[in-house]
Amino acid sequence: MSEGGARRRGGGRPPEGQPVIDRAFALLASFDGDHRAQTLAELARRCGIPRSSTLRLARSLLGVGALERLDDGRYVVGLRLLEAASLAPRGHGLRTVAMPYMEDLFHVTRQHVLFAVRDQGEALLVERLSARDASPVRYRVGGRLPLTSTGVGLVLLAFAPPAVQEEAIAAYEPGHGDDDIRTPDDLRGVLAEVRRGDHAVGRRYRPFRMTTVAAPVRDGEAVVAALSVVAPDTGPGTPGYGPAVRATARALSRRLAEDGSQAVARG
Amino acid sequence: MSEGGARRRGGGRPPEGQPVIDRAFALLASFDGDHRAQTLAELARRCGIPRSSTLRLARSLLGVGALERLDDGRYVVGLRLLEAASLAPRGHGLRTVAMPYMEDLFHVTRQHVLFAVRDQGEALLVERLSARDASPVRYRVGGRLPLTSTGVGLVLLAFAPPAVQEEAIAAYEPGHGDDDIRTPDDLRGVLAEVRRGDHAVGRRYRPFRMTTVAAPVRDGEAVVAALSVVAPDTGPGTPGYGPAVRATARALSRRLAEDGSQAVARG
Repeated sequence: MSEGGARRRGGGRPPEGQPVIDRAFALLASFDGDHRAQTLAELARRCGIPRSSTLRLARSLLGVGALERLDDGRYVVGLRLLEAASLAPRGHGLRTVAMPYMEDLFHVTRQHVLFAVRDQGEALLVERLSARDASPVRYRVGGRLPLTSTGVGLVLLAFAPPAVQEEAIAAYEPGHGDDDIRTPDDLRGVLAEVRRGDHAVGRRYRPFRMTTVAAPVRDGEAVVAALSVVAPDTGPGTPGYGPAVRATARALSRRLAEDGSQAVARG
Repeated sequence: MSEGGARRRGGGRPPEGQPVIDRAFALLASFDGDHRAQTLAELARRCGIPRSSTLRLARSLLGVGALERLDDGRYVVGLRLLEAASLAPRGHGLRTVAMPYMEDLFHVTRQHVLFAVRDQGEALLVERLSARDASPVRYRVGGRLPLTSTGVGLVLLAFAPPAVQEEAIAAYEPGHGDDDIRTPDDLRGVLAEVRRGDHAVGRRYRPFRMTTVAAPVRDGEAVVAALSVVAPDTGPGTPGYGPAVRATARALSRRLAEDGSQAVARG
């Protein structure tokens, strides 16, 4: 789970003459889970932008609050960006409607509860609830996951447009998905099963045994998000969270259908 | 609670020749709780940017995913912005550490739990947990509140640098704060009391009686955030949430002190 590091770094060298907005967002995108605070030199190097231009860009972004500086002079992402992002309908808007349902699921299971949406060929984790003593997981709110991996990814992929699915199947390599999915054909079979059963079950054996159950969240006909519980797999006696996840996803879908896109727009 | 609408609209007319980044962020800032989806014409009008420039800007922002379009062609804030914003240490970073403690407080009280940080002269609501059946409040995640209003605002103001406090006191007008604070001197007295007691109690009588208790969250010596419970005030029998809020804020502060800024930076 590289959280899109490769994508960002791969896309981090804009050609000369690239519009200033592309450069500004390349600069913002160079922050990730492993680079939350960066010096000017790091920013310039990681974005492949000349240092003088990086300084000008950084100053503009400081001016609008999209960046802030730590006491040691390093740059971090600013609060102003959080404020603007909070109005993204497919992010915080959906999340606001989903949150009480996630709370319910969390109360009942006391395990990790994940809520994700699809952004082109990846899943974006919009929210995660976790108990203080829950086993650690690598899923970070705002982070990206491959669609071929974990329950929410598989649900979002199973209900994605055929072209997105075919691309993911064609590109599939073992290790990019759950440990039971070894070949592109395995993946194709799993996706068909997800659609048939209207939920996904995933297992991982490393670093320890985890199991996940995910179900689609619909706004009318369209699958707009996926909800899951991720829990340690403790063998035959492991509680089955499937019915709870599926019932909660249906309750949330019903709520979205009742309110229509108004609910999301209201956030 | 205008959620910064005035500030945004007031600052929404950039002078000719303003750098493109300032314009791009003015455009993003023109989205607010009442304007979550906008046509190109609305964007141009509300930002005071000529329509042709607005179209160019919007296209660039669509290209980097900072904007998305609805089926009806209107523009909304895009998921990519959420992804970048999730790395803001003072937003999601702090929030990640705070979340399990907020959960605990929510479990115990089943009332609104708010978590806010100060951004210059305003409070920014980083997180809110609310029961599905809780009384409605006007506080939106990612939204702004005056520092002179509600518990978290008063706590953040009481521990702000003296210049920030003096400015807020000088500008204070009745109606901009809790209903018991009528004059700048009232406000000065309340702030001193917040520092003495290390917590704030606020009351509102409209639209219905609400009471709030807020306490500071510290990272070492510095107050970095405020935590509160907002509950309907049902008269003499109303449960006192003060001790729960204060104990939770202290537990969270202890955790931040143990981990230092690492905890926040790790997010």
